[in-house]
Amino acid sequence: MAKQYLSVRNLKFLLHEVFKTEELTKHPRYEHIDKEAIDMIVDSALQIGDNIAHPVAAEMDRKPADFRDGKVYVHPQVKKYISAMAEAGLIGSSASLEVGGSQLPEIVTTAQGFIMGAANNGITTFTGLTAGAAGLIASFGSQELRDKYLEKMYGGQWQGTMCLTEPQAGSSLHYITSSATPTNEGYYKIRGQKIYISAGDHDQTENVIHLYLAKIDGAPAGTRGISLFVVPQKREENGQLVDNDVTTIGIYHKMGQKGTPAIHLQTGAKNDNCRGWLVGEPHKGLTYMFQMMNEARLGVGLTGASIASAAYYEALEYANERPQGQTLSIKGQDPNAPQTLIINHPDVKRMLLFQKAVVEGSLSLIMQCALYGDLAHTTEGEDKERYELLLDMLTPVAKTYPTEMGIQSVSSSLQCFGGGGFCEDFPLEKLYRDIRITTIYEGTTGIQSLALLGRNVTMKNGKAAMAYFQEVSKTIAEAKTYDPLKKYAETLETEMQRLQNVTQHLVGFAMKGEVERFLSDATLYMEMFGISAIAWQWLRQGIIAHQALLTKNPQGDELSFYESKIHTMKFFFAYEIPKTQGLATRLLDAEVLTVGVEKAVFV
Amino acid sequence: MAKQYLSVRNLKFLLHEVFKTEELTKHPRYEHIDKEAIDMIVDSALQIGDNIAHPVAAEMDRKPADFRDGKVYVHPQVKKYISAMAEAGLIGSSASLEVGGSQLPEIVTTAQGFIMGAANNGITTFTGLTAGAAGLIASFGSQELRDKYLEKMYGGQWQGTMCLTEPQAGSSLHYITSSATPTNEGYYKIRGQKIYISAGDHDQTENVIHLYLAKIDGAPAGTRGISLFVVPQKREENGQLVDNDVTTIGIYHKMGQKGTPAIHLQTGAKNDNCRGWLVGEPHKGLTYMFQMMNEARLGVGLTGASIASAAYYEALEYANERPQGQTLSIKGQDPNAPQTLIINHPDVKRMLLFQKAVVEGSLSLIMQCALYGDLAHTTEGEDKERYELLLDMLTPVAKTYPTEMGIQSVSSSLQCFGGGGFCEDFPLEKLYRDIRITTIYEGTTGIQSLALLGRNVTMKNGKAAMAYFQEVSKTIAEAKTYDPLKKYAETLETEMQRLQNVTQHLVGFAMKGEVERFLSDATLYMEMFGISAIAWQWLRQGIIAHQALLTKNPQGDELSFYESKIHTMKFFFAYEIPKTQGLATRLLDAEVLTVGVEKAVFV
Repeated sequence: MAKQYLSVRNLKFLLHEVFKTEELTKHPRYEHIDKEAIDMIVDSALQIGDNIAHPVAAEMDRKPADFRDGKVYVHPQVKKYISAMAEAGLIGSSASLEVGGSQLPEIVTTAQGFIMGAANNGITTFTGLTAGAAGLIASFGSQELRDKYLEKMYGGQWQGTMCLTEPQAGSSLHYITSSATPTNEGYYKIRGQKIYISAGDHDQTENVIHLYLAKIDGAPAGTRGISLFVVPQKREENGQLVDNDVTTIGIYHKMGQKGTPAIHLQTGAKNDNCRGWLVGEPHKGLTYMFQMMNEARLGVGLTGASIASAAYYEALEYANERPQGQTLSIKGQDPNAPQTLIINHPDVKRMLLFQKAVVEGSLSLIMQCALYGDLAHTTEGEDKERYELLLDMLTPVAKTYPTEMGIQSVSSSLQCFGGGGFCEDFPLEKLYRDIRITTIYEGTTGIQSLALLGRNVTMKNGKAAMAYFQEVSKTIAEAKTYDPLKKYAETLETEMQRLQNVTQHLVGFAMKGEVERFLSDATLYMEMFGISAIAWQWLRQGIIAHQALLTKNPQGDELSFYESKIHTMKFFFAYEIPKTQGLATRLLDAEVLTVGVEKAVFV
Repeated sequence: MAKQYLSVRNLKFLLHEVFKTEELTKHPRYEHIDKEAIDMIVDSALQIGDNIAHPVAAEMDRKPADFRDGKVYVHPQVKKYISAMAEAGLIGSSASLEVGGSQLPEIVTTAQGFIMGAANNGITTFTGLTAGAAGLIASFGSQELRDKYLEKMYGGQWQGTMCLTEPQAGSSLHYITSSATPTNEGYYKIRGQKIYISAGDHDQTENVIHLYLAKIDGAPAGTRGISLFVVPQKREENGQLVDNDVTTIGIYHKMGQKGTPAIHLQTGAKNDNCRGWLVGEPHKGLTYMFQMMNEARLGVGLTGASIASAAYYEALEYANERPQGQTLSIKGQDPNAPQTLIINHPDVKRMLLFQKAVVEGSLSLIMQCALYGDLAHTTEGEDKERYELLLDMLTPVAKTYPTEMGIQSVSSSLQCFGGGGFCEDFPLEKLYRDIRITTIYEGTTGIQSLALLGRNVTMKNGKAAMAYFQEVSKTIAEAKTYDPLKKYAETLETEMQRLQNVTQHLVGFAMKGEVERFLSDATLYMEMFGISAIAWQWLRQGIIAHQALLTKNPQGDELSFYESKIHTMKFFFAYEIPKTQGLATRLLDAEVLTVGVEKAVFV
């Protein structure tokens, strides 16, 4: 296993140079931190990554979470990890000071999450879900619920989860059937089943707090009748934790992320005494949950980027150490020539640059989204609305590109190892298995694509899309002021025009009421949108790197760093952007081959 | 697990309608068979697939090949499978009658291999390798070697392998160091190590016969000094099988194909008494091995297509059974509407059509190659040379497209299952793991791409490339005679022009001696070449289906079948061909970003 799993230099480049996180600290919300504090948070996350998370990554895969005699067991390092994260204030890193959090900007939390995900993507789920679940209680729960749960959750004693999916409904929450019957004692009786509940039960915390979607008896049909409940695995009675009739009835045997249990839960089945406490108002559960869902979507995108980062540094180390073959220019000319390192083969260089372009481009887009969230928290009025729209607009893209292309990137890392990549001798086969879930978690690529095209592009009469195109235009205009970047700025300009043409073409179907036709190739639209969004991020990085080269007179590693940024930007523009040509051709094509097609075609 | 893992109707369509295999049987070489015999072979392969191979596919994955106390254990069904294949005459299916084979056309053997690969891709390795190893002895070995080995190998008592890879050399056979020291007793003493030897040791046959590359003491450096040996695990002495100093020192723990052991072997290490018998002449080993390699490459392509086939039918069954969500056209309009089957979502239809297009397009290209091999065997002079060139030309493409796109196809099948695809409850996660090795086996995609562009395109002054372009032109001309196919014929014509332009542009670098530049993006060239080759196969299928619709007046399932062929052809043209636009843009771009780039760029 390579020691390196990410570039700290790149993380600081994005935090400080590209996104100028320090500027956020001028706002009262973040006045308790400064640049040094941000670097210290990064450092303490790296400590936990290096010393606790990364060393057990392989072992957690080999000794997966296990369900026996009614109990779920996970690797004992999980407890150490949760404690260390709690002590460093990193479970509640983005929660407000008021509820016991560290009140850090989301962009800093994102940096921390990237480190943990790259170190050991399975272990981050435990704390990530606790943070998300606690965040819902903090935002929408009563003071009583906050007092009861938040300290223990941010302190790492209690695990949090999100319980959405049910066997019969899958991603279609409209059809969930978990029920909540009111009582006179302030709680509801919960009955139902939930599947795929990550960290839904294990032996490393004393309790598990489920944020649970259910329908109050008599609630309206569909998503408008869904409420949100806190359903603890054990509830407190007279200062004691007692069983709350939440039963683990199965564990999923997964291809990857095997260290994190995914649980099949049943509530109220033992003695009809599962108690849940309503969060906020009845029937508003889905709206609340979407706060967490949107964060979780960015979180899954981040997992994609971080797994791809770990895989890239594995491939890079191997390519720098493994001799094989001769360079093409001398091949066959001297049978006694020694072998060359595989990094000297252009095809290996191409694969490595592809990985680097995906990893650093993806991370940049996710941090951009996090920053929009922070700016929405620190502005008012029109500005605030604009940042919220930008965050909304880009969230499905920042979930999808890093996961879809992350899978390709990890596959390319694996390929650099040849046969070794397929074997347990190297961590690639594990990372390849792990990352595959990310295009499914928290809404599949298909669902994200419907959200992007079917909802975001047209919402508020296209105001969000307009705001996004303006952001990109600003970057293009700035890049044009530097001669060596002009070519790339113009390329991106052409791309944005291409994207707008396609968008208009597709929206035309929506206006004619042809909804299925409008959305039938939403996934390809997402692919096209994602490529130009990452190109935008690369141009942003290119501008900063170019400015640094002009003004900072960097030497040695610093010079290499900035030159590498320019080179990788060029690579992305040369190798990835052209893919939009074929996508646009397809999206503008009049031929309809899926909508309305009979099943008989699939024989 | 779905019962169906392939379309028999499609297999017979390709065998009889598209490739008219029956015509081969007019030649004396195949006069012992006819159309009925071919169908019987398909049926007996299906019997073995249904009753022996497919039922244990999951179990062979859950209980992988194991190495303990110096012995390698595999699933006991392997013995049953090998016996059934031997009894049906299918291990030696393409071997000549003279050596005890069934002397079937390669295209029939391909159909049989497709069935087995789709039924259980791990189990086919055992018989596939025996056939390949025996084929080398049959083609190049002395009568003594043939007499000694072939009957037992084709009879399933003895396993065959190919021993190429060594730890220090990997894919670069130039650097192998296994040595062979001549003795006066007609054998050589073999010393060395070989890695990743599939089926290299196991408990289901009484002996393992290694076809082993080594260098005779004093041989020339590099590939010109490599010889081929038969190195049995146990040799015969006085009618007894005795130990031949071939030791298994390790087994690889693989991500997929876990039922097939991959072995790390040492020869001559126990008592310097490992005996090997030279096959053919000294120093010609690599030339001989390439006969097997080329067949093995097509075989790996076939494995890719067959795994993708199994995954497609799993996804199709699930999509036809799983209700989830509402169709987009009624979404939200009626909260009480029942859920629809996921096959009714356009995005799911798109994913399924993509899989079908990849599976049936890939199989068609591989069968086309097999047919070229058969035609080379049954013609003379210029015709024979032309078929050999066509087979050579297309072999790396028929290895690469079905594996690279097969991986995408299986990933798309998995995606249809949502979270279930990531869990052991469905066979998708296994198929996803299994297929990942196929772009590495028998030469990675990078190596195949160098062979295509660096060798095949220019060989004999472009004669092979010319022959290929003529074949495609013939199909285009025929398609143009049918009005409804004209549009597709013209699209393919444009594609071939695009490919020729790119080819000329790249060959220009070779002519200037810029070898690295010429080949730096060979992998992208392969991708572009593959897409148009599959488009060609789809147009061929489209012509036959169109003719059938015009002349056969098909009804019911037959009508659906032919219409489905036309529809899938259209899908491939609409969704896949446009990808070449971006590839061509990149390949014609002057910017060089890999060749000559310093390592510092990868930070």
